[in-house]
Amino acid sequence: MKTIQAAVVGASGYSGEELVRLLLSHPQVELCAVTSRQYAGQTLAQIFPKFAHHPRAKTLHFSEPKAELLSRQAQVVFLALPHGVAAEFAVPLLQQGCQVIDLSADFRVKSAGVYKEFYAHDHPAPELLAQAVYGLPELYRAEIKTASLIASPGCYPTSILLPLIPLLRARLIDPAEIIADSLSGVSGAGRKAELDYLFVECNESVRPYGLPKHRHLSEIEQELSAAAGERLTIQFTPHLIPINRGILSTIYTVPTAPPVSPAAVEEAYRAAYQDEPFVRLLTGKALPDTKNVAGTNAIEIAWRLDPRTGRLILMSAIDNLVKGASGQAVQSLNILGGFPETTGLLGS
Amino acid sequence: MKTIQAAVVGASGYSGEELVRLLLSHPQVELCAVTSRQYAGQTLAQIFPKFAHHPRAKTLHFSEPKAELLSRQAQVVFLALPHGVAAEFAVPLLQQGCQVIDLSADFRVKSAGVYKEFYAHDHPAPELLAQAVYGLPELYRAEIKTASLIASPGCYPTSILLPLIPLLRARLIDPAEIIADSLSGVSGAGRKAELDYLFVECNESVRPYGLPKHRHLSEIEQELSAAAGERLTIQFTPHLIPINRGILSTIYTVPTAPPVSPAAVEEAYRAAYQDEPFVRLLTGKALPDTKNVAGTNAIEIAWRLDPRTGRLILMSAIDNLVKGASGQAVQSLNILGGFPETTGLLGS
Amino acid sequence: MKTIQAAVVGASGYSGEELVRLLLSHPQVELCAVTSRQYAGQTLAQIFPKFAHHPRAKTLHFSEPKAELLSRQAQVVFLALPHGVAAEFAVPLLQQGCQVIDLSADFRVKSAGVYKEFYAHDHPAPELLAQAVYGLPELYRAEIKTASLIASPGCYPTSILLPLIPLLRARLIDPAEIIADSLSGVSGAGRKAELDYLFVECNESVRPYGLPKHRHLSEIEQELSAAAGERLTIQFTPHLIPINRGILSTIYTVPTAPPVSPAAVEEAYRAAYQDEPFVRLLTGKALPDTKNVAGTNAIEIAWRLDPRTGRLILMSAIDNLVKGASGQAVQSLNILGGFPETTGLLGS
Amino acid sequence: MKTIQAAVVGASGYSGEELVRLLLSHPQVELCAVTSRQYAGQTLAQIFPKFAHHPRAKTLHFSEPKAELLSRQAQVVFLALPHGVAAEFAVPLLQQGCQVIDLSADFRVKSAGVYKEFYAHDHPAPELLAQAVYGLPELYRAEIKTASLIASPGCYPTSILLPLIPLLRARLIDPAEIIADSLSGVSGAGRKAELDYLFVECNESVRPYGLPKHRHLSEIEQELSAAAGERLTIQFTPHLIPINRGILSTIYTVPTAPPVSPAAVEEAYRAAYQDEPFVRLLTGKALPDTKNVAGTNAIEIAWRLDPRTGRLILMSAIDNLVKGASGQAVQSLNILGGFPETTGLLGS
Repeated sequence: MKTIQAAVVGASGYSGEELVRLLLSHPQVELCAVTSRQYAGQTLAQIFPKFAHHPRAKTLHFSEPKAELLSRQAQVVFLALPHGVAAEFAVPLLQQGCQVIDLSADFRVKSAGVYKEFYAHDHPAPELLAQAVYGLPELYRAEIKTASLIASPGCYPTSILLPLIPLLRARLIDPAEIIADSLSGVSGAGRKAELDYLFVECNESVRPYGLPKHRHLSEIEQELSAAAGERLTIQFTPHLIPINRGILSTIYTVPTAPPVSPAAVEEAYRAAYQDEPFVRLLTGKALPDTKNVAGTNAIEIAWRLDPRTGRLILMSAIDNLVKGASGQAVQSLNILGGFPETTGLLGS
Repeated sequence: MKTIQAAVVGASGYSGEELVRLLLSHPQVELCAVTSRQYAGQTLAQIFPKFAHHPRAKTLHFSEPKAELLSRQAQVVFLALPHGVAAEFAVPLLQQGCQVIDLSADFRVKSAGVYKEFYAHDHPAPELLAQAVYGLPELYRAEIKTASLIASPGCYPTSILLPLIPLLRARLIDPAEIIADSLSGVSGAGRKAELDYLFVECNESVRPYGLPKHRHLSEIEQELSAAAGERLTIQFTPHLIPINRGILSTIYTVPTAPPVSPAAVEEAYRAAYQDEPFVRLLTGKALPDTKNVAGTNAIEIAWRLDPRTGRLILMSAIDNLVKGASGQAVQSLNILGGFPETTGLLGS
Repeated sequence: MKTIQAAVVGASGYSGEELVRLLLSHPQVELCAVTSRQYAGQTLAQIFPKFAHHPRAKTLHFSEPKAELLSRQAQVVFLALPHGVAAEFAVPLLQQGCQVIDLSADFRVKSAGVYKEFYAHDHPAPELLAQAVYGLPELYRAEIKTASLIASPGCYPTSILLPLIPLLRARLIDPAEIIADSLSGVSGAGRKAELDYLFVECNESVRPYGLPKHRHLSEIEQELSAAAGERLTIQFTPHLIPINRGILSTIYTVPTAPPVSPAAVEEAYRAAYQDEPFVRLLTGKALPDTKNVAGTNAIEIAWRLDPRTGRLILMSAIDNLVKGASGQAVQSLNILGGFPETTGLLGS
Repeated sequence: MKTIQAAVVGASGYSGEELVRLLLSHPQVELCAVTSRQYAGQTLAQIFPKFAHHPRAKTLHFSEPKAELLSRQAQVVFLALPHGVAAEFAVPLLQQGCQVIDLSADFRVKSAGVYKEFYAHDHPAPELLAQAVYGLPELYRAEIKTASLIASPGCYPTSILLPLIPLLRARLIDPAEIIADSLSGVSGAGRKAELDYLFVECNESVRPYGLPKHRHLSEIEQELSAAAGERLTIQFTPHLIPINRGILSTIYTVPTAPPVSPAAVEEAYRAAYQDEPFVRLLTGKALPDTKNVAGTNAIEIAWRLDPRTGRLILMSAIDNLVKGASGQAVQSLNILGGFPETTGLLGS
């Protein structure tokens, strides 16, 4: 099988580091470049000792992020940059023929207006929004296959969209009554030297934040609305908990009348996900647990119908850095490259 | 001021240990007995090295739990026993004139039928249910003052009732639309040698459990129904997170029409809690955090109105072992004993 | 009993916060001022929500650190400032008649030359070194009683000096063969926004640092040399472990010939510490554990003679913020003020 | 390349689970059987949800551990059983022609007498001790290649032997003056339902244990003595710290006179390990950190000469479940099977 030359731009953050981990072990990828302003000139092994036993880590040096150079080296470029910066960087790469998989929020929402509402600045490249494909393979596999610009989904959105979409499409739940309560590990905040994320401030602490209008709502509501066939608004509360990796989402929904049957829910999930390699539909008494997905590209999904309240409660767990970011981006790469979708993604 | 002779029955669990911590430092209490079948004959200092610098810890020995003996030594007996066992132990103590503060679930629900529904066995002493007072000082201060049997509330209930009750009483929220999503530290599971609570199984893990019909719903719905003036049912999902102590509850409510004003919410809380020494109404951008209440008897409460969804979101944080168990029990003791309510409870 | 007016300068770090915690509950102290450039104008309750249930926390505002003002308000001023800064601040306070308890390293070493060797700058007030008393109550109780300037010991030194000094004084161990291996919680690094101390970088991590010539060696060797009656040099390796609070030191020593008897070791410790309220000599199989001292001013000490190697191994555990910093400073205050030494220090 | 049929006996503990993780991703291995009395009849995916996205996990069922059956299915059998039990199980497997890689302590020491001294029971199969090879590839690669019975080293021994052996062989350090101070994550205690290993008992705790005569000393001293060419005894203190995975060892040594030069130490390590794929010799200011080896088969080694004391301090970090157990066992398998030694071991 062929080998793809891939580059990671902005490889010094947690998502970038995780991309490097996955790409170093990917049998169909040669990691040809990693960029970081801060670390330019140093090897992967120097900056990320945990990869130092990998032969490539000793020879690959961080470089300055220069689009022209990257476009000559790489067929596929992963952008692990802050929003705003990513879009600006994508423009020349696309012009020079690279395929771009962007892990930032820049190309996830279709509307430049919504982008501005949630991200508080004008979109740097609104002309590209139409061609961007939302990189959730379970939904947009066909579109990803031929995309030049893939907007890899956010971590919270992945954990919320996958449990909800089959039920919305099957009209089993009321689009107006969705509440998502999510818990994220601290790596979700990025590798930033801020007091709030010090060990002593996070250990033995749990706290809500960013409510009621977190930025990720923009892409969540866009995709849920598409699934429901109508414009919807949801409630979303993220919380920070003292784990390194993982998101656990508990989602409260109201079945459409007449009362939904367990069999209908089961069938909706089965139909949507029975062949999906990374969607794990829990059965029996099993409930999601972030430790069961840590380091993997899997999402665990379980649900309970409450006969007392009539509500249907959905629960999911992902690794925010893998299925919630870098693993999902590699899954898109596999689709782009025509490889089996689990290539390089079965380890943990 | 007078000194109360107090005993702790079942002092080897986490709640019992926390009671010991608080009572050793309480200026109006003499801890006259601690019982534990397992540790009988050993001193407090031997079993709980963390108290060993306290003079009393070297002289006080664990004894077998014998009601007759305890009733001669103690005026007030705290029961930190499993449900079922606590009720059986309370009977002779009450007969012999002790005041009993029970930290188990045995006397929290008024109906023996509801007790059986949620705890799966007949109530061992249904004749005492009528005289038991639910020991939430912010609600039942007057009743606690003259009670002989106080049923100290559960940890989840405390974190859910205090934010909700003022709003239900003021008819600001719809009683039919309440969802409580709670996160608990591992001490909530008790000091039990089970695989699920091993360090390796809890660290880097977060998981829901016990839904949709957790036992604590019995007392939560009883007290919320009383506040609402009508029978209500709520949604409740507990989760286990890797901290030792703390509960964070995020509660989703729907304001009654016409849309509730922020001023009305603020006023309801102010009226209910402005003089409460342990209720901390957060203002500005502050949100609850378990680390801000760890080791203390405080509850932090914040709320947000979401203009997009119309919902009112309440958030609270407590230490499950203090305001959620032993601290609250000591607060009741202070009321019983006629001491200032913060006596022995201002440290952390 | 009298009440002392006390101030905390630099109350925004972890040691300062811990001083505030202890002084708020101290029955013989009125906390009259807390300073912080960063937080000037805000109340204690705003900056440290965990103290907000304490009545004083709502009325006490952080002020700018001004020596003249402080000296009019306070009899005793605690300095929780970085080294270098503390000494400069101490000068005017002492001139104006305050008693100063300094938690920095500035007055711990007697020699300005040694200070410069270890702290890499000239001592800012060498003329004060002679009058400063090393604030380890178990060693210098008499001197503390009449001191105007107390240099409260460092956290590692406290955990290393207390186990070693009785054995050196009794000539039971060889002064030339001491190795101290210490493990510290992350609060020991201070409240600093640095990548190294982020939750994700510390969780699931343990690492040595600062060897072989850590700054604390200056005061450790000074005090051990005094105890041994000869100039000695020790080996010391600190490590960072993922706990908030606590230091565990394991100290390797070689008994002097002829082989030391267990009874001699026991007697040396008994003689030194039998009346010390905060020194806990473990017996039987018990070994030190940081969780047994967290939040308390206690030090746990245990030892084992190894018949295979002939070595004597000492182990100790303290809370780095209490016995290793703020609790020990309050213990000195109690001595200064003529209060029972455990006043305000029996809680946890 | 050929495929080896491999089985894991006792796959329900942490080492067994880690073996399963590694073998599922190993390109030259087919995992043909996993045994567990407790889980017999259930699939890998049911018991270890974290592997459920791996195709093999859905079809492979746990079986009862029966040597006869296993010997027909597997060429290589890994034993992840308690000591004592492992040896009994190895006998029939070897008789029936399997190659056995034992992760227990049963075949690590050459002397049945030493075994009995440290493990407190008679060796169950002393006749096999002579043929067993100590499975530390960096030392015994040639012997492993043709072994039928491999005794995979313990976790503490691996972290202590690899830094020491090159220096002992080069006669750079005094064999009589070795002190190893080690810190282990909680998975090292195994998956056992005991109070001591509960989350609440381990979190915010660090404690020494098992000194001064821990069982692992038997194999450590055997191998160090072999390297030194003389019988030696060392000091060893293990500690438990609140991480899931990892061992950090700090080893104090005394150079042989005349004073050792840094170049000699560097050269000893270079000569021993420059071609070793899993030994990472740190340079510059870098020091070992368990997070840099978590999930990998690497060992990080650094050293410092202390000019003040003359001592040479060695530091190492491994993942106790990988290089300290299952990864090292797979490394031996690779040698046995004639595969490149890093096969299946470059991921993390």
